[in-house]
Amino acid sequence: MLETTIAAIRPLDESAMADARELHGRLTKPAGSLGALEELSVRLAGLAAACPPPVPEPAAVAIFAGDHGVHAQGVTPWPQEVTGQMIGNFLAGGAVVNAFARQAGASVTVVDVGVATPLPIVPAQPAAEAAILDPSVPRFVAATVRQGTRDLAVTAALTRDEALAAVQTGIRIADELIDAGAGILLTGDMGIGNTTPAAALIAAFTGADPLDATGRGTGVDDPTYARKVAVVRAALARHTPDPADPLGVLAAVGGLEHAALAGLILGAAARRTPVLLDGVIAVSAALAAAAFAPDAVGAMVAGHRSAEPGATVALRHLGLDPLIDLGLRLGEGTGALLALPVVTGAVRVLHEVATFDSAGVAEK
Amino acid sequence: MLETTIAAIRPLDESAMADARELHGRLTKPAGSLGALEELSVRLAGLAAACPPPVPEPAAVAIFAGDHGVHAQGVTPWPQEVTGQMIGNFLAGGAVVNAFARQAGASVTVVDVGVATPLPIVPAQPAAEAAILDPSVPRFVAATVRQGTRDLAVTAALTRDEALAAVQTGIRIADELIDAGAGILLTGDMGIGNTTPAAALIAAFTGADPLDATGRGTGVDDPTYARKVAVVRAALARHTPDPADPLGVLAAVGGLEHAALAGLILGAAARRTPVLLDGVIAVSAALAAAAFAPDAVGAMVAGHRSAEPGATVALRHLGLDPLIDLGLRLGEGTGALLALPVVTGAVRVLHEVATFDSAGVAEK
Repeated sequence: MLETTIAAIRPLDESAMADARELHGRLTKPAGSLGALEELSVRLAGLAAACPPPVPEPAAVAIFAGDHGVHAQGVTPWPQEVTGQMIGNFLAGGAVVNAFARQAGASVTVVDVGVATPLPIVPAQPAAEAAILDPSVPRFVAATVRQGTRDLAVTAALTRDEALAAVQTGIRIADELIDAGAGILLTGDMGIGNTTPAAALIAAFTGADPLDATGRGTGVDDPTYARKVAVVRAALARHTPDPADPLGVLAAVGGLEHAALAGLILGAAARRTPVLLDGVIAVSAALAAAAFAPDAVGAMVAGHRSAEPGATVALRHLGLDPLIDLGLRLGEGTGALLALPVVTGAVRVLHEVATFDSAGVAEK
Repeated sequence: MLETTIAAIRPLDESAMADARELHGRLTKPAGSLGALEELSVRLAGLAAACPPPVPEPAAVAIFAGDHGVHAQGVTPWPQEVTGQMIGNFLAGGAVVNAFARQAGASVTVVDVGVATPLPIVPAQPAAEAAILDPSVPRFVAATVRQGTRDLAVTAALTRDEALAAVQTGIRIADELIDAGAGILLTGDMGIGNTTPAAALIAAFTGADPLDATGRGTGVDDPTYARKVAVVRAALARHTPDPADPLGVLAAVGGLEHAALAGLILGAAARRTPVLLDGVIAVSAALAAAAFAPDAVGAMVAGHRSAEPGATVALRHLGLDPLIDLGLRLGEGTGALLALPVVTGAVRVLHEVATFDSAGVAEK
């Protein structure tokens, strides 16, 4: 399944991109006056191999949740139970991601790929396939690979098979959402401690020093931060992950939600569907996806610049400029959701704006 | 009317702001993890003097259109007729602002405060007051003060009475939109040549050198840009506008749409209603509004950082950080519309997100 998906990922279509650039020059606005939105719409035309590309609607957020053995190293002050408790909050519609998704008309799918503690009671799920993209009912998918990773400070976080299972879960969720009609996928994540494996992934794939790849996550104090950097540095020294072997990197120092997000991104790219990246967890997974299939970067849109320094390191490596930069560091998919109207708006311009000719507006 | 409006503008309510900060600490997210959205929501609580403040809906874009005598100096390659032609495009729904407004569910009101050339045939306007905020029908308001300003390179652009009339038109439009139920106003503008008076206003109010306050507008070439800077510099030397006399500054080197936008901002502030600023024209008008009433800044939200350098000079002077920074330089209200979901989302968090206590989520 992973091989088939990777094989289906192709470069952007140059001809559709040229058509989009030409169309931009005829629309009633000064050339270039929409700044980054113009190139974004051109890339999406290349991804869809069509000009104009389809308006990326409806939007579907996929939140992958998992726990982390490295929690035992004291890298975060939050108890591990919060991962499962937040799943309850997502399904009850009470989290920030729910508020933003309701506003954007996006559906929310919560996928348990590896929560360690017992989950709260999950509300009954609607059976109909039509409900998959219903923005008013958050959906739950049980897909536990194992109940939390092993502690990457002492052993590999996952076996290769476990990492592969999580990647394939991500591909399957992408397929399911796109089959249901989603026009764009948004990455979401939940996992107490998951900025530590994200930092390790970023350092492994980019070669950045752990000090530059590691941030304060939920806002840890100086001693915790120093411990976190030391854990990442020691894990890289212990496992010496090979960036040319993304499954090996994910297994050694990753997390189940990171692996599943890499799969989601690959699945979207294989279907020529844009995937809007949230913060540092998403971009660490995006590095893995790009290592599996470099052309997958063509499907990625960077939603925002997380306050986590590692996110900027990863975005630079991927060659992506984020749409929003407001100091967010919440995760869940919140930054991607804030950027969604920019993406949709960029495409709408190619569909809805009159040309100088059709509007009877003089050119300079 | 202007005096009454200015007298009604009050500081932000500290008690509501303290309530909003306290509420943020109890919501299910790490403290501070929503970055700039948290302080934005706190400011809006202060503006409304209520926590949570009302969700800023529905949104209304007011586009003020005018022409400029300084067009005769060759500061832009675009013919003056384009201002009126673009009004036709706005009313037909074919401009970028229309595409973005439809997406955001915002109404569009186009106000002619000073177009120089004959307008295209204006579609029949619905009579009912309920239609004022209808997002599916752009609305036209004829409020011509004079058919274009005088050439600020050779004389004052407006008399004080003309500038006052435009400011009062802006106040009247703000009142009308808020009376109809608008929860937030967005600034829009159209006027071939209007970045030249904007640069002059920014230089006059901030003391910036004309070279730093002047940009390339629609993208003018080097000789045109040099001419534009020279025109701004000569106008300031000729008129020596006094920043403590905002009506005098608007009359000497402003435009009718700039004056009307200053009025719109003052009108919104007097009604404790947020006003989302678009680009360089908006922020030059915001400087005038702040000179009339310093507390008006409390009602302003900077939508985006225009590619025009003067916009950054003005934002710094106002102490405002923009929400979006994507190199836009189109005007019309497009940058404000892209930022609208960020503003709405910031307020929704205070209404919709569960507390740790109510959601049964553990704290660190």
